[in-house]
Amino acid sequence: MPVTTPNTAIVYLVGAGPGDPELLTVKARRLLDEADVVVYDRLVSDEIMALIPHGIPRISVGKQPKCHPVPQSEINSLLVSLAREGRKVVRLKGGDPFLFGRGSEEAAFLHRHGVHYHVVPGITSASGCAAAVGLPLTHRGLASGVRYVTGHCRNDIELDLDWRGLADPDTTLVIYMGMANIPQIAVRLIANGLTETTPVVAISDGTRPNQRHVMSTLGEIASAATAARFEGPVLFVVGRVIEMAEALGIKDRETRPVRALGETRLA
Amino acid sequence: MPVTTPNTAIVYLVGAGPGDPELLTVKARRLLDEADVVVYDRLVSDEIMALIPHGIPRISVGKQPKCHPVPQSEINSLLVSLAREGRKVVRLKGGDPFLFGRGSEEAAFLHRHGVHYHVVPGITSASGCAAAVGLPLTHRGLASGVRYVTGHCRNDIELDLDWRGLADPDTTLVIYMGMANIPQIAVRLIANGLTETTPVVAISDGTRPNQRHVMSTLGEIASAATAARFEGPVLFVVGRVIEMAEALGIKDRETRPVRALGETRLA
Repeated sequence: MPVTTPNTAIVYLVGAGPGDPELLTVKARRLLDEADVVVYDRLVSDEIMALIPHGIPRISVGKQPKCHPVPQSEINSLLVSLAREGRKVVRLKGGDPFLFGRGSEEAAFLHRHGVHYHVVPGITSASGCAAAVGLPLTHRGLASGVRYVTGHCRNDIELDLDWRGLADPDTTLVIYMGMANIPQIAVRLIANGLTETTPVVAISDGTRPNQRHVMSTLGEIASAATAARFEGPVLFVVGRVIEMAEALGIKDRETRPVRALGETRLA
Repeated sequence: MPVTTPNTAIVYLVGAGPGDPELLTVKARRLLDEADVVVYDRLVSDEIMALIPHGIPRISVGKQPKCHPVPQSEINSLLVSLAREGRKVVRLKGGDPFLFGRGSEEAAFLHRHGVHYHVVPGITSASGCAAAVGLPLTHRGLASGVRYVTGHCRNDIELDLDWRGLADPDTTLVIYMGMANIPQIAVRLIANGLTETTPVVAISDGTRPNQRHVMSTLGEIASAATAARFEGPVLFVVGRVIEMAEALGIKDRETRPVRALGETRLA
């Protein structure tokens, strides 16, 4: 640890969850109150940003597909600089920082530069969105496990996934960031053994006030998702657990957030 | 919906997360304050139970391995009865209610009996325990996705898992409830293609004050976990992401919770 680093230098890598501010953890909520500065991503919802006390500096390092305003190396350096000023830094990331979040790259950089870090897990989109629609990720007899992959590929090269392993009818498959590549994904899953009638749900803006979902099948999900003209981030859930929809009273498509159902008080 | 059910009848299926009370969501924390009655599992930590206001009835339906004090069908009926009394029922489950929690069985039963339900996702053990140790679940170049399975089998029959698909070196494999079957699991993963040197970490009582972890390899994890004499629930994380341990400053074994590191205030 270089002598230039105060002993108190610490960065909190905090998961903001899927968007609903009530799905922050108690710890994340506390750290937002205690932060000296917040460095945040594009996927963190406006409602969550509004919780940060007035006067606390907030720095956007948001990335958009095919458009990287702040390179990862600059984010890493920024975190080290802020921590070395003795400030309590909260690095706020959508979902869970150690799941598709590049949080571990930031943590490794911090450690290499003698800055302490602390990871606060967040509700990942798969859990948050499934619950918001009302669908389980596992269910006895329908899905014995779950698998999360990202449908986004670097530099627009072809997706390099273990298609044969992914096409397991007993495992729920959740695809993050898959909107651009869902046609290719569906074709490959079918080519590797999943039936065209395997149910799929696409959830857009999950847990947020403008949440929408569309149920379809693997054979038709690409066109159904396109027809839905989703604007926010989309999560796809593939597998037989979706057959539970009827028994759980879930509609095929829904523009109103299901979390409003029976709620005595909304977030 | 039968006429005997008050319109206000509602059951909240709430994830309690992995144990640390600060890893409750803000929504779960609020619902504990508002509940008229709490029905809870064995895996919900004492620290979380202590948050429930004095005087609120709490009903244990805890299950232990090979010992089922309250059958699932009785839990289902209990939830319906309590809701029909017009009470605001919080059904508190360890981790996430819709991931290995049988929460969807309870939800389907409630729906069938005309009782509204609302699902509040929780931090699942994989996210909570990995973060508490400081290890990521995905990392570019080491793991492109993650998969969760349960290593527990009903009626002590042989585990029926997609071993070939599970033995994917590019996917982090997280095994819930695997302590009893880890010897069999390790042997099968190796037989299906993972190398004996694939790193594994076993985390016991993750996120709790008595958290411990042991790092090993697939070839030796069964004996290492046995030698550790874990007493609480154990989660296994298998895969190359664990190679990040050195770059992240994580020790091979640790009996002190890593979350104490650099913390200015403990939960």
